[in-house]
Amino acid sequence: MKRAYMDHASATPTKKEVVEAMLPYFDQHFGNPSTVYDMGSEIKQVIEEQRERVARLIGVKAGRIIFTSSGAEANNLAIKGVAFAGQKKGNHIIISAIEHHSVLNSARFFERMDYEVTFLPVDKYGLVSPERLREAIRPETILVSIMHANNEIGTIEPIPELADVCREKGIIFHTDAVAAVGNIPVNVNELGVDLLSLSGASFGAPKGVGALYFRDKLRLMPLIHGGIQESGRRGGTENVPAIVGLGRAADIALEGLAKNETHMRELRNALVSGIHKRIDQVKHTGHPENRLPGHASFCIGAIEGEALIYMLTQHGIYTNTGSACASKALKTSPVLVAIGVPPDLAQGSIVFTMNSTNTMEEVEHVLDKLPQVVARLRDLSPVWRENKAA
Amino acid sequence: MKRAYMDHASATPTKKEVVEAMLPYFDQHFGNPSTVYDMGSEIKQVIEEQRERVARLIGVKAGRIIFTSSGAEANNLAIKGVAFAGQKKGNHIIISAIEHHSVLNSARFFERMDYEVTFLPVDKYGLVSPERLREAIRPETILVSIMHANNEIGTIEPIPELADVCREKGIIFHTDAVAAVGNIPVNVNELGVDLLSLSGASFGAPKGVGALYFRDKLRLMPLIHGGIQESGRRGGTENVPAIVGLGRAADIALEGLAKNETHMRELRNALVSGIHKRIDQVKHTGHPENRLPGHASFCIGAIEGEALIYMLTQHGIYTNTGSACASKALKTSPVLVAIGVPPDLAQGSIVFTMNSTNTMEEVEHVLDKLPQVVARLRDLSPVWRENKAA
Repeated sequence: MKRAYMDHASATPTKKEVVEAMLPYFDQHFGNPSTVYDMGSEIKQVIEEQRERVARLIGVKAGRIIFTSSGAEANNLAIKGVAFAGQKKGNHIIISAIEHHSVLNSARFFERMDYEVTFLPVDKYGLVSPERLREAIRPETILVSIMHANNEIGTIEPIPELADVCREKGIIFHTDAVAAVGNIPVNVNELGVDLLSLSGASFGAPKGVGALYFRDKLRLMPLIHGGIQESGRRGGTENVPAIVGLGRAADIALEGLAKNETHMRELRNALVSGIHKRIDQVKHTGHPENRLPGHASFCIGAIEGEALIYMLTQHGIYTNTGSACASKALKTSPVLVAIGVPPDLAQGSIVFTMNSTNTMEEVEHVLDKLPQVVARLRDLSPVWRENKAA
Repeated sequence: MKRAYMDHASATPTKKEVVEAMLPYFDQHFGNPSTVYDMGSEIKQVIEEQRERVARLIGVKAGRIIFTSSGAEANNLAIKGVAFAGQKKGNHIIISAIEHHSVLNSARFFERMDYEVTFLPVDKYGLVSPERLREAIRPETILVSIMHANNEIGTIEPIPELADVCREKGIIFHTDAVAAVGNIPVNVNELGVDLLSLSGASFGAPKGVGALYFRDKLRLMPLIHGGIQESGRRGGTENVPAIVGLGRAADIALEGLAKNETHMRELRNALVSGIHKRIDQVKHTGHPENRLPGHASFCIGAIEGEALIYMLTQHGIYTNTGSACASKALKTSPVLVAIGVPPDLAQGSIVFTMNSTNTMEEVEHVLDKLPQVVARLRDLSPVWRENKAA
């Protein structure tokens, strides 16, 4: 059977070269970086090399990277780290209405502690307006967090403009770049952010490793308190094999960025125009141009997303309906609500996330099967019959 | 050159069988457990199987295990999770004076927020007294955290008696069992604790994975907020390969517990009596019997621990001076201070942590080299010359 795995935002295989790079660190070079003898300091050196690799991928210096166990941990560390360190400065946090659960629920956590959280609305493409951000900032605002790119609709936010507003007002600005780093060029200095989260699983590193970049001298309360690891900012023995994997994956991602972006954009354009040609009552969600190159997302009328996803797997096609973290938790996606998709149509959400390993043959396989599956589901749908009758 | 690696508390090689069990989950079974299609639900099933394995190792049911990225994260989740969930109930936390940094600094974090922390003293063996605990409990106490076994001095605390006191008074009791689980039999029901932290790295799983057991219905604020993972108690995509490694290591540890304990105890006893025979002015730290089987710790008079550790590595002998997490942060170990070791003597701390792979030949190698190294260091030591003169 033909196969087309297009759910890379949920999970992607760890690259073979990455696994190979990790292997010696399980049972040969297994030392604890904090030990005083050579075996430890050698490992410490290895970790610093990976820090440089990750830093290079986002265009910064090594000393400002904290390794975490995931993008979600990096987001929690950013929000809580800044908020707890700045407790005496103010109690107002601004995030967008379409943030990942790890940002959203970290901010919500502070609502219990007499903080106020402003959720900035987005336009029909999912864009946050720098003007709206400026208006939302108050004297007691301590942190703004707006994602770089949205996993569900692919939209890339105008981070440099948003960061400018924050810099003008002296507010710390964090961006969740989990969906962006490794897929598009990301340069912290060009973005002008104070903190940036990334996840290795987005670009061929294993699950279980991420990182937080933070600007020099920025005060950050640890999320995981412990010993002297990560300059006292993240306790727990360093996950050496995973960090080595992250470093290797960062190198590979950086090298392939330009070529992969072109390739993914070609596939994406073919998929989008093919779907519009073959299926009616389809809404393309997210920004038409300012979006992740391998990302295509739609709402298909009179279709129930989970049924669609399930039936596509029968043809070897793997996609998603919204974000994997939320997929079982919510009936209607808050991201689709935020961009004004009517609830009925939002049910028919389908998200394709491709990476550099996807091929035009796979896109053709999807374009062959998706219309059939949609037609079959619509045949069974009372909504569709009503639509057609009207 | 002969070799004797006896710093397993700092780091231990991941077992070959464990790495083999993990490998397919990097690039073959790579799905995200939260996706709605089969590839995800299969992985979800795999995770639940590992939860049962870890549960079996500590004698409980599977549903009450949260996977974390380390023992340190599990400790942070326990302390902060209970304290934030119980904020309205009270603001007093009790820990012992010899807790791991991840417990100590998690508790300290709440001091900034108008909580009070009581640090229970320990006796000369490092034991916490149930009577002292009873006296320390106040109406506003919300949590007691006392470690199962101490990494630095090997002492095993009287957890059932301490937990009894807490149960009587209706106080939540957590134990950091990172040093114990996998090395000695641990049964949550016999211990009577409400929460228990463990780390896979203590028993042959890779770095970067731990777990927190929590009693049914106990309220716990997530440390890492996010999506629906771990029943909403820990955000971030599950680290599937590491969790599979933890499960495999738990099975292996459970199977070998009794045999390994006997073996390690033999090595330990030979090491302790050999050192006492060969070196004078040596203080054996920690409890003589109630201690981890593979653990031997000493303070050697007129010796500087770091120099000793370093010179031993020249003979292929790897040991530690205190805890790896603290080794570069502190000159005098708070644990040794707490058990009343004079600061001078505390400088000469040496800790041997053996596991089942260590051999009697290795012990003999240590007993051969350690006295020579001590003699050489003492020859160079003005303190020693003064001592001898006096």
